[in-house]
Amino acid sequence: MVEAVSWIAADWGTSNLRLWALDGRNDVLAERSAPCGMGSLQPEAFEPALIALIGDLLPPDRVTRVLICGMAGARQGWVEAPYFKVPCRPVGTHAQPAPTRDARLRVRILPGLAQDEPADVMRGEETQIAGYLARNPGFQGTICLPGTHTKWVRIRNGQVDGFRTVMTGEIFALLGTQSVLRHSAGAGWDADAFDDGVAAGLSHPEALLADLFSVRAAALLSDPAEGAGRARMSGLLIGAELAAMRRFWDAADVVLIGAPEVSALYATALGWLGARPLVMDTARLTLTGLIAAYEQLDWGQV
Amino acid sequence: MVEAVSWIAADWGTSNLRLWALDGRNDVLAERSAPCGMGSLQPEAFEPALIALIGDLLPPDRVTRVLICGMAGARQGWVEAPYFKVPCRPVGTHAQPAPTRDARLRVRILPGLAQDEPADVMRGEETQIAGYLARNPGFQGTICLPGTHTKWVRIRNGQVDGFRTVMTGEIFALLGTQSVLRHSAGAGWDADAFDDGVAAGLSHPEALLADLFSVRAAALLSDPAEGAGRARMSGLLIGAELAAMRRFWDAADVVLIGAPEVSALYATALGWLGARPLVMDTARLTLTGLIAAYEQLDWGQV
Repeated sequence: MVEAVSWIAADWGTSNLRLWALDGRNDVLAERSAPCGMGSLQPEAFEPALIALIGDLLPPDRVTRVLICGMAGARQGWVEAPYFKVPCRPVGTHAQPAPTRDARLRVRILPGLAQDEPADVMRGEETQIAGYLARNPGFQGTICLPGTHTKWVRIRNGQVDGFRTVMTGEIFALLGTQSVLRHSAGAGWDADAFDDGVAAGLSHPEALLADLFSVRAAALLSDPAEGAGRARMSGLLIGAELAAMRRFWDAADVVLIGAPEVSALYATALGWLGARPLVMDTARLTLTGLIAAYEQLDWGQV
Repeated sequence: MVEAVSWIAADWGTSNLRLWALDGRNDVLAERSAPCGMGSLQPEAFEPALIALIGDLLPPDRVTRVLICGMAGARQGWVEAPYFKVPCRPVGTHAQPAPTRDARLRVRILPGLAQDEPADVMRGEETQIAGYLARNPGFQGTICLPGTHTKWVRIRNGQVDGFRTVMTGEIFALLGTQSVLRHSAGAGWDADAFDDGVAAGLSHPEALLADLFSVRAAALLSDPAEGAGRARMSGLLIGAELAAMRRFWDAADVVLIGAPEVSALYATALGWLGARPLVMDTARLTLTGLIAAYEQLDWGQV
C-alpha cells in the first residue's frame, strides 16, 4: 500500500493500459501497465480493469481522480470523449466523465482532436503534444509523431493549427508480414538500401506501389544484401511520405516524437533534405502532457 | 474416360490449378480445376496433384504432353523455369521440362518474363498476353491486366517492350481486411465515392497513404453513405495508379484483360482521362495463349 497517492494519470491505448500514481507534487509514486487495451474491452470492463491494476493504490476513505488519454475515449471505448476540432489547444479545460460504480474513483477522459478538411483524427498524440508544449511553450513549427499512423502536426501560438495522418507504419507492417513482400523482408538492415529507397520515394512518390513490388522482383532477379529488402521498403515509404508532407517540414522547425529507432530513420531522411529535426523520446511526454492537462482541467466539485 | 485427348493445357497459379484436355484440333474435351495451388505444394507434390486431377484422362499406352503456365515455374514451384528478359515475345520456343515419374506424362512449364530496370517480374500474365496477340497479331499499345498485382505492359512489334507491376489489388485487400480501414470498408458500393476517390488519387497520388487514412477519419466524423468507404479506397488506389502509369496509357491504345468487375473500374477511370480502353475477359485468353505457345514450342522428340 503506497500512502500519499493524490491522483492517477493513464494512457489507455488500443493494446495497452499504462498508468502512473502521482503525489500532490506530481512526483511518480508508482508506474504500472497491463495488456488490457481498448481493443479487447467492452465498455463495462474498463472500470474493473482499472481497479485490477490500481485498486491497492486507492485511498479507501476519499475520492481519487483518474485522468486518461487515448483510445479509452473512442466510440468503442469506456465512454466517448467527442473530438475537439482544430485549430485548438492540444488539451483544453474539458474532459469527459466516465461512469463508475466504485465510490473511490472519479474518472475523466481527454478528447482527441479532429479536422474536417482533409478529414483526420488523433487520440493520444494530442497529450504528447501538450507535454512537449508544456516544456516548450513558445514552440512554433511542426511536430511529427512517427508510428503506426504517423502524425504531422502544425503548431501555431500554442494551438494545433492542422494535421495529417499517414499510414506508413501500418502499411510497412502489413507488407512485411502479410503481402508478397514478406518473402523479401527478412531480418537485418542495409543502410544503403534505406538511403536508395528514400531517394526513390522522394523523387517519384506516386509510384510507391510499383516501386514496392520492385523490391520483390529485385530479390528474385539478383541477390540483394541481407536486410536490403526490408530497408528499401522502409525507405520508399518514408521517402514518399516526406514528399507528400513537404509543406509540414519545409521551412519550419521540426520536432520528432516517437520510438527512438523509428524517429532516427525520419531524422536521417529529413537531414538530407536540409531539415534539422529535434528528436524527442516519447517516454515522459505523455505523462508530462497528462500532468499539464490535469492542472488546467475544470474538475468541478469532487 | 474421354477418348481422344491429345494434350493438356494448364494454368497453375499460387492458389489454384486449372486445366483443359484438348483434342488434336485444340478443341476442349474437358475442363477441370482444383485448389492445389503452388503455394500449398512441395516440388515433389506437383506430379501427384496433376495425376489426381487428370489421371483418368491420360491414354495408358502413349505419352501425353502437358504445357503449364504460371507459378508452378517459380523457384518454389515444381521446377524453376527461369525468366526471359524483356524485350522479347511473351512466349518463345522454349519451356522448362519438369521431372516426372509417370511414363504417360511429358511436362513443360512456360517461363515468366523479367525486366532489369526497374526490376519487375510476371508469371502467367505473359500467357494471357500471348493469347491476346494470337488473336490480334498486329496490336501495338498497352495491355493492362488488373488484379492482385496489376501489370501494365507495353507491346511493340509482337514483343513485350517493358512493363510495371502495381500492388493495387493486394493493398486494397489488405487494407479492407487487416488495417484500421477494415472498420470503414463494409459491404456495398457508392459510385460517387469511387469517382471522388479516383479524382483525388489522380490529382495527388503522392498523398495516397494520408488520403486513405482520411477515409477512416471521415467515417468517424460524419455518416458516409453505405459502401462509400470501400469505394473511395478503391478509387484512391486506382487514381494514384493511373497517375503513376500515365506513360503507359497516355496516347496509346489500351486493352484491359482481367475480371470483369475490376476491369470495369479501370475502364471508368481511364474513360475520364480520355482513354478508351478495350475490355477483354480473361476467361479464354489463358487457354488461347497456351495453345499458341504449344504450337510454336520446340518439344524435341517424344
